[in-house]
Amino acid sequence: MDIALAEAAGAAARGEVPVGAVVVADGAVIARAGNRTRELNDVTAHAEILAIREAASRLAAERLTECDLYVTLEPCTMCASAISFARVRRLYFAAPDPKGGGVEHGVRFYAAPTCHHAPEVYSGIGEAAAAQLLRDFFAGRRG
Amino acid sequence: MDIALAEAAGAAARGEVPVGAVVVADGAVIARAGNRTRELNDVTAHAEILAIREAASRLAAERLTECDLYVTLEPCTMCASAISFARVRRLYFAAPDPKGGGVEHGVRFYAAPTCHHAPEVYSGIGEAAAAQLLRDFFAGRRG
Repeated sequence: MDIALAEAAGAAARGEVPVGAVVVADGAVIARAGNRTRELNDVTAHAEILAIREAASRLAAERLTECDLYVTLEPCTMCASAISFARVRRLYFAAPDPKGGGVEHGVRFYAAPTCHHAPEVYSGIGEAAAAQLLRDFFAGRRG
Repeated sequence: MDIALAEAAGAAARGEVPVGAVVVADGAVIARAGNRTRELNDVTAHAEILAIREAASRLAAERLTECDLYVTLEPCTMCASAISFARVRRLYFAAPDPKGGGVEHGVRFYAAPTCHHAPEVYSGIGEAAAAQLLRDFFAGRRG
């Protein structure tokens, strides 16, 4: 999660909403990314999507069956679904997102009948640091 | 929708689940794509996501505020959410998808409190042709 937090801080430094994600396989980081939606003009360029695409590219496989994903914010509905499609084994996320989350809030995708794979979900690890990054970012924008 | 159906047929010819999508702005097609998840080893490479990314790249803008999306199958949860983030104005889809859809089935994302923009939705246009493409594809796989 420390690497994901570093990716989130890097996103903030680029003027992006500070969210970072890391894919781990066999104890090794195989992909890491920060949010790049503004830079790429791409609403799908959330940290989780970029990390999943990078990991799949490295493994030359669509499915990340043996992989775990660490992300600093509760995945949104789009990312929760992408994580399911990628067959990610475990999802660790730091801060909850009542307004935009799709795992423990909103559509709670992993409990939906149209969800065909749900990762194990662990939340709260690194929550304070992840939430602080987001607060600082939005306070800076308003300031 | 005819162009989206042609993209879906093209996807089938490549061995991909036949789904096609088109983005229209001011009466002109600005992006078109078929599903390429297998070819790209990318679970996010659904026709809608590829078309949205291409349209945003062409317009050099994250948001497709004045754009309409035509897709041959009811968007899944991931795509429904991406369509919302992209601020697509109108969504036209052909065949319903009770098992995987996220618009009129499953999470019905546009009615969720965590959905911050819902397109106008029109369904059923080209449904028979789109459904036939899917039936033929899956029958061929089983055969």
